Amino acid sequence: MIGKYRIRTDLAMENGEKYENDDVELSGVVIRKDYNQEKDVHTTYVQIQTEHGARMMEKPIGTYVTIEAPNLTVLDEEYHREIAGELSEHLRALLPGGDEAAILVIGLGNRDITPDALGPQVVENLQITRHLVKEYGAAALGEKCARKISALVPGVMAQTGMETMEIVRGVVKETNPDVVVVIDALAARSIRRLNCTIQLTDTGISPGSGVGNYRNALNQETLKVPVIGIGVPTVVDAGTIIHDAVAELLESLEESEMDEFLGELISPSLQSMYVTPKEIDETIKRLSITISEGLNKAFLYSG
Amino acid sequence: MIGKYRIRTDLAMENGEKYENDDVELSGVVIRKDYNQEKDVHTTYVQIQTEHGARMMEKPIGTYVTIEAPNLTVLDEEYHREIAGELSEHLRALLPGGDEAAILVIGLGNRDITPDALGPQVVENLQITRHLVKEYGAAALGEKCARKISALVPGVMAQTGMETMEIVRGVVKETNPDVVVVIDALAARSIRRLNCTIQLTDTGISPGSGVGNYRNALNQETLKVPVIGIGVPTVVDAGTIIHDAVAELLESLEESEMDEFLGELISPSLQSMYVTPKEIDETIKRLSITISEGLNKAFLYSG
Amino acid sequence: MIGKYRIRTDLAMENGEKYENDDVELSGVVIRKDYNQEKDVHTTYVQIQTEHGARMMEKPIGTYVTIEAPNLTVLDEEYHREIAGELSEHLRALLPGGDEAAILVIGLGNRDITPDALGPQVVENLQITRHLVKEYGAAALGEKCARKISALVPGVMAQTGMETMEIVRGVVKETNPDVVVVIDALAARSIRRLNCTIQLTDTGISPGSGVGNYRNALNQETLKVPVIGIGVPTVVDAGTIIHDAVAELLESLEESEMDEFLGELISPSLQSMYVTPKEIDETIKRLSITISEGLNKAFLYSG
Amino acid sequence: MIGKYRIRTDLAMENGEKYENDDVELSGVVIRKDYNQEKDVHTTYVQIQTEHGARMMEKPIGTYVTIEAPNLTVLDEEYHREIAGELSEHLRALLPGGDEAAILVIGLGNRDITPDALGPQVVENLQITRHLVKEYGAAALGEKCARKISALVPGVMAQTGMETMEIVRGVVKETNPDVVVVIDALAARSIRRLNCTIQLTDTGISPGSGVGNYRNALNQETLKVPVIGIGVPTVVDAGTIIHDAVAELLESLEESEMDEFLGELISPSLQSMYVTPKEIDETIKRLSITISEGLNKAFLYSG
Repeated sequence: MIGKYRIRTDLAMENGEKYENDDVELSGVVIRKDYNQEKDVHTTYVQIQTEHGARMMEKPIGTYVTIEAPNLTVLDEEYHREIAGELSEHLRALLPGGDEAAILVIGLGNRDITPDALGPQVVENLQITRHLVKEYGAAALGEKCARKISALVPGVMAQTGMETMEIVRGVVKETNPDVVVVIDALAARSIRRLNCTIQLTDTGISPGSGVGNYRNALNQETLKVPVIGIGVPTVVDAGTIIHDAVAELLESLEESEMDEFLGELISPSLQSMYVTPKEIDETIKRLSITISEGLNKAFLYSG
Repeated sequence: MIGKYRIRTDLAMENGEKYENDDVELSGVVIRKDYNQEKDVHTTYVQIQTEHGARMMEKPIGTYVTIEAPNLTVLDEEYHREIAGELSEHLRALLPGGDEAAILVIGLGNRDITPDALGPQVVENLQITRHLVKEYGAAALGEKCARKISALVPGVMAQTGMETMEIVRGVVKETNPDVVVVIDALAARSIRRLNCTIQLTDTGISPGSGVGNYRNALNQETLKVPVIGIGVPTVVDAGTIIHDAVAELLESLEESEMDEFLGELISPSLQSMYVTPKEIDETIKRLSITISEGLNKAFLYSG
Repeated sequence: MIGKYRIRTDLAMENGEKYENDDVELSGVVIRKDYNQEKDVHTTYVQIQTEHGARMMEKPIGTYVTIEAPNLTVLDEEYHREIAGELSEHLRALLPGGDEAAILVIGLGNRDITPDALGPQVVENLQITRHLVKEYGAAALGEKCARKISALVPGVMAQTGMETMEIVRGVVKETNPDVVVVIDALAARSIRRLNCTIQLTDTGISPGSGVGNYRNALNQETLKVPVIGIGVPTVVDAGTIIHDAVAELLESLEESEMDEFLGELISPSLQSMYVTPKEIDETIKRLSITISEGLNKAFLYSG
Repeated sequence: MIGKYRIRTDLAMENGEKYENDDVELSGVVIRKDYNQEKDVHTTYVQIQTEHGARMMEKPIGTYVTIEAPNLTVLDEEYHREIAGELSEHLRALLPGGDEAAILVIGLGNRDITPDALGPQVVENLQITRHLVKEYGAAALGEKCARKISALVPGVMAQTGMETMEIVRGVVKETNPDVVVVIDALAARSIRRLNCTIQLTDTGISPGSGVGNYRNALNQETLKVPVIGIGVPTVVDAGTIIHDAVAELLESLEESEMDEFLGELISPSLQSMYVTPKEIDETIKRLSITISEGLNKAFLYSG
C-alpha cells in the first residue's frame, strides 16, 4: 500500500498482494496459488488463521477461494459451464451438511442498479426445491439429491427501511436452514478482475463490503448457522483507479512527497462514483447464470 | 348464485351481490352504500359480524370497504390523486396506533407477471422511513409525523421455496411492527370492476385469495399484530366470464337443465387462463402509484 | 362456423377447420398434414391458390406452414432446440436469395405488453451481421455463410405516431434487403394452440391480424420485396372462448334459436379483454429464444 | 488543455473552458452566460460562427445552449417542472415551423445500458399526436396546437446491423417531418455536470459524440431537414477523470515533464470503462421525464 489512502477491495487475495513487494512477514496467513493452463484459470486459496493475520489482511479469520477466469467476460456458453463446474466443486468443499441439507440463498443488492444486481439475478435463475421436498418428499426431485433450497431477495435498506440482517435473521429463525449462502456484488482494486473473478468464503459478508455497503455482518456469529459468501467484483472505486494510476507514475518521485500528493488526489465528488465497463448489463446477466448453474450443480446433483 | 360452479371473487361486496335477488335473509352481515356523484365513486361498507354471516359471505368476520372509481382506468393525474386521498382516509380509519406507529408493508405477488405485480410495484413507490427515524429521530422527517414505515417484497413460493407466511412472520418477530399492511392483486367476478376498484379490510388476506393463491392466511391470528389488506382486482377467471355469459342466456330455460349445462361448460383447460385487459401493464403502473400515494399520505401526514 | 359471430384467428389452418364437418368443397385450397410421432409435432401445409380459396379462408393467396408442438410450453431446452431446427428448415424453404442474401427482420408489437412482445424479444436474441459483413467482408463471420442480417423494432402506432408500414418501407428503401422477415404475436381460436404453435407464411402479415391489429399489410405488394411472416398465437379473444364453450353446449338445441343466443352472448366489454395463460411472461421469453435460434440457424449456417 | 491527451466532451461550453486561462483569442466564437440566482441555473450560449471557430471548439458551426441546473439530480418534482419549462422555451426558439409543424423525435442510444438509455426513455414519455391529427384533424388535440409529433427509437448498430443514419433517413423520407429532434446521452468532462446539464443545439449530433459513438452525423446536411440535438451528459470517461486529477496535482511540477507523465497515465484498459454515479438508474428516469415534459410543452402548447 502506497500512501495513506485506504484502497478498498473485497477480495482477500488483493489484500494479500499489498505485501508482495514488501519484506513484511505475513504471519497467520497462508496463501496458495494454482493455475490451470488449459482453462486459463488462476485459483488462489487464502487462509487467515490468526487475529494478527486478520488485521494485516483487513478481513475476518477464515478461508477465501478466488477463481480468476478472464474469459468469463466473453460470450462462450461452454466456458461458462466449465467455470460453473469449478464453482460447484469449491462450494461443495465449503458446504456443511450432507445431501439432505436445507440451504437458504440470500441475493443481496439492489436489482435496479445493474452493478449491484448480481445477487437478485442469481436468485432468479436458482432451482428452488424446499417447498417441493416438504410437500412431496425427496422423490419429487427424481434422481437429484434432496437438498431443500430456499431463497430470498431482501432488498436494500433504502427500499425496506430494515437492516438486511434483521430480515435475514427473522427468516432464518422461522425456517431453520442448515446453512446460508449469501450472493453479493463486490468492489475490486484491479480493473482487470472486474466481472471475471469469483470469491467464495466461509466468513459470510462483512460490514462495508459489497457495492451497497452493509452495516451488519452476515456470518455464523450473527445468524447462528454457517454462512458462505459468494461474490464477483463488478465495480472499482473511481478513487482507486486514480490512486493506482498516479502511484505507478510517481514511483520515481521522492517517497516523502508522495503521501501528500495522493491525499489531495481523491476528491470527495469522486467517492459516490463507480467505474464500470460499458457492457455491464449483459455481463451481469451472463455471470448470474454461471453462478446459478454452479449453485444448482452443487446443491442438487451429488457425486 | 346460479348452478353449482363456485364463482371466485375476492371482493366481499360481490359476495353480497349473490343474494340481492334472493329472499335469503343475510343475518350477521351489514351492508351500507355511499355514492359521491361529483367524483362518480361508489363506496360499499360490508361488516361481517357473525360466523353465520362469514359462511354466507365466504369471507372472515371483519370490515370491508370497497371504493369503485371507474375513471381509475383512464390517465387523469388529478383524479388519481383524489382517489389516493379517499384511500388514505379509509386506511387511517382502520389503522391502529398513533402518529408514531411502526408499519410494515408487504407487497405480495410476482413482480414478473404483470397482473400479479401490484404489491411489488406499490412497495417500489413507497416512502420508507423506519431506518431514518431510527438513526436520526422523528426530526429526520421534518413536518411529517414520525411513523416508521418499512416494506418487504417476499416473492412467491415458486421463487423462494418458502411460504409467504414463514417469511413475513420471521420479519415481524424480528422487527416488531405495530401493524402489517398487505397489498395484493385480487380476482373479481365482474369485468367492469377490473383495475378500478380498491378493497380495504381489517381481516388481512385469506387462503386461496389473490391472483397467486396463498395457502396460509396473513392476519392478526397468525401474525400476532393487526393486519390490514388492500387489494385491487386485476383478473377475472375465464371460467367466471363464461359462467356469467351463459347464466344470463339460460335464464329463460328450465331451471332443472341449467346445473348440468353449466357444470359441463367450464373446461379444465380454462382454469389456468386469466382474462385481462390489453393495456394491463400501464394500468398496473398507474394503480400502484395511486395506492402508494394513498399510503404515503395516510402514513406520513397527520391531520 | 356456427352462428354469425365472426371468430377471429390468424392461423390459416384454423380457418380450414371451419369447413371440416361441412359438405362445402374448399376449391382453390390444398391442405396437407404431417405427424412426427417421436417429437409429437403436427405440421399443416395450407396452400391458398385462388381468389375463391382466399375468400373462403379469409387469408391472402400463398403458402402457410403451421408447426404444432405441444411441449413448447414446458421448459425443455433440447426440445426447444429441435423445434428451432424444424423452424429453420421450413424458413429456408421459403427464403429467396442464396447464402449471401440480405435479410431485414422486423419485430412487430409492443414490448411493454407481454402477449404482444414476441417480435421485440425475438429481435433481441438475433445474431446481427450486416454491419460486420459490410465492414470486414464475409470472412468476419468465420465458417458461417455471409447473409447480411439486420433488424428493427418499429414500435406500435400509439408510441410512434407512424404506421408500421411507413417506418418499414422507409428503412427497406434505404437499406435494400433481399427479403423481409416479420415476427408477430397472433390470435388463435383454440386455447390449446396458445404458445405452442408457429406459423410461417410467404404472405407477410395482413391488416387486422396480430395482437395489436395493423391497418396496412406488410407484403411483397407494399414493400416491393418478398415478405415472410412468422407468428405464434399468444392470445385468444375472450369472445371466442365463450362462443366455443356455448356452441358446444347448444348443439343439442334447435338450430334456429342458436344464432340469436350467440349474438347476445358476446358483450362489448369483453372485446378489449384477452385471455392469456398465467405464466405468459416466461413462456414468451422461451418462445422468443426458440424462434431466434431457428432464425439464426436458417440465416447463418448453410447446409 | 494540458498535455496531449485529447479530453472528450460533447458539451460545447466545456470546449470553450479550455481556453479560459489562455491568451488565445477565440475568434469566430461568441460565448454569453446568464445566471438565474433564484433557480440556481447557469445558462451558457455558444455561437460558433466560422470554420476557424469550429476547429478551435472541435464542434460544428451553429448555436449551443447549455442549461446547468445542479438540483436536477435531487428528487424535487416542482424544480424538474421548472427546468422543463426552461427547456421548452429554448427549444421553441430553435424550432422551425409554426404551430402546425410535423416533428420527428429520435431517441438515440441503447435502452438496456442505463447511462445510454436517455433517448429511448424520453420517447417513452412523449405525447405522440401525428396519427391522431392525421385521422381526426387538429380538433383531436383539443385546445392544444396541432403539431404532428412522431417518434422512433432506432436502437444501436450492434442490435440493428444498420447505421442509425440509414434508419432515420429512410423514415424521414417516408414521413416528411418539418424538423427532427434527436435526444442522446452525452459525455462530459466535469463530474459535477453529470445528469444536471442539458445542451440544445441546432447542429444535430456529430460523429463520435454520445455515449454510444455514432459514425455518421445526423444534421441538416445529411437528413435534408433541420435537426435539433438535445443531450444530457451521463458519463465521464475514466481517462478524463484521471487526467484532470493529475493535471491539477502536477501544476507545480516542471511543464516539460508533464506531457510525458500524462501520456503514460491513461491506460488502454481504462478506455472501455465509464464512470457513473451509483444512483444512475433513478437519475436517468427522472431526467427523461423532465425532458419529455419540456418537449411536450414546447410541442403541444402554444403561447
